[in-house]
Amino acid sequence: MTLSFEIGKRLDHLQVLSRIARDITLPLFAAPKGVENKAGGGDYDPVTKADIDAEDALRAEIRKQFPEDSIQGEERPDHIGTNAFSWTLDPVDGTRGFVAGVPVWSTLIALSHKSEPVLGMIDLPALNKRYIGHTDKETCRAWLETEACPDGTYIDLKTSPCAEIRDAILGCTAPFGMFKAGELAAFKIIGAGTRFMRLGLDALGYGLIAEGRMDIIIEGCMKPCDVRALIPIIRGAGGELTNWEGQSAVDGGRIVAVGDPALLPELYTYLGRALD
Amino acid sequence: MTLSFEIGKRLDHLQVLSRIARDITLPLFAAPKGVENKAGGGDYDPVTKADIDAEDALRAEIRKQFPEDSIQGEERPDHIGTNAFSWTLDPVDGTRGFVAGVPVWSTLIALSHKSEPVLGMIDLPALNKRYIGHTDKETCRAWLETEACPDGTYIDLKTSPCAEIRDAILGCTAPFGMFKAGELAAFKIIGAGTRFMRLGLDALGYGLIAEGRMDIIIEGCMKPCDVRALIPIIRGAGGELTNWEGQSAVDGGRIVAVGDPALLPELYTYLGRALD
Repeated sequence: MTLSFEIGKRLDHLQVLSRIARDITLPLFAAPKGVENKAGGGDYDPVTKADIDAEDALRAEIRKQFPEDSIQGEERPDHIGTNAFSWTLDPVDGTRGFVAGVPVWSTLIALSHKSEPVLGMIDLPALNKRYIGHTDKETCRAWLETEACPDGTYIDLKTSPCAEIRDAILGCTAPFGMFKAGELAAFKIIGAGTRFMRLGLDALGYGLIAEGRMDIIIEGCMKPCDVRALIPIIRGAGGELTNWEGQSAVDGGRIVAVGDPALLPELYTYLGRALD
Repeated sequence: MTLSFEIGKRLDHLQVLSRIARDITLPLFAAPKGVENKAGGGDYDPVTKADIDAEDALRAEIRKQFPEDSIQGEERPDHIGTNAFSWTLDPVDGTRGFVAGVPVWSTLIALSHKSEPVLGMIDLPALNKRYIGHTDKETCRAWLETEACPDGTYIDLKTSPCAEIRDAILGCTAPFGMFKAGELAAFKIIGAGTRFMRLGLDALGYGLIAEGRMDIIIEGCMKPCDVRALIPIIRGAGGELTNWEGQSAVDGGRIVAVGDPALLPELYTYLGRALD
């Protein structure tokens, strides 16, 4: 059994996982109920019934199909498996958008092998879009499944060439919430030099980079479950996603994603100055 | 002929106008081409082929059906009619989102009678949502037509009670682009006191207030064609939309929309301090 065969089995199961999550999340998005306040007080950190129920359902399905795999998710303790595969789940990424009725929330599912993400899915139920990416030694691909695609077909994803910041479209979900003062200053300096910026996109922004519609996303305060699914999609489409120091972003933190890796050296220079 | 009869005839024609615009805009959103730079240089002010072609098609249809009505649009000179009705068109509101692949762009159509908006539509083709509002002396209503609604049915819209800023969800499309420094400071002070804020929504945010999913939108630099269609929808659902001084927003500028008018006095106090 090659690694790719094992990844392929799990890749083939992503659509099932998408459907399981959508059946739970979509009705609750249409008529939201059961929102709890995880922080229990001051800071608002919403976690919906959708988040908890979908994570439980996804965990149950993964444990049934791949009982040796590990599972990490935001809402439940880690499950420690017996092989080198681990799943990272964020059943509702963008819970604030979910609460406010904004259709850019998504279900993020990543598969890692020895801590390196090899498979990622951004599933956007309210937009009926499913971005999937796949990276291992032999292949590196990303594609989009949408209502415009008949069953079993998909759109191959390729990022856009964009070597200059002045030509780039920049995204960030929530600059006032994600950055400290020095970080926000660096983000604004970069933003002022771009073609324009778009805010409030959550994981959709990374899909739009993979589609070649956007060029840069700069964010902070990311958790591992926010970021692991994005990496194979961005890389599979020809882009790159790292932390602000140019290192692996698998543990979250401050991240930068680009469609054209030629943008990175100049971005690292600006972002590096925010670290002082 | 009563005023309401004349408005009713035009209301009945909104779906036709929506379809005419969607036929032009949706294919160009899926595969964007022909984006010109209206500013011709420094500042980026995109206007797409969708914007120009859809405005021409909407103008032609309105002039055929209602030859006595006036028409204002962003892309062409005003047409001066012979009665008290005037249409205000923004065929693609949120052109930056349109260019970047973000599905929150919309077609805005307003009908005013003696400069007072009486009918408004926010048509979101990429989300298949159509918000319509209607205000005159006798009636005041807003509703949503979506793919979940069979032909001829709709969802009545009602804003949510939310009398306290700390319970409110606040929206703004682009705080870095829409506000001067003092205005941005006021926006951030208000934002820090809310439940949370969501950015990047364009006209969808106003629809979400009418749905009762969001509570406050604060924006600046609005043109008349950005704002007139919103007023009958917000008012028809039970909310209010004014400028920052509490006066009519029909001429654009700095505006504030709320689902619960009880929020307004405190908001005016904060926003008024930004004027110094």
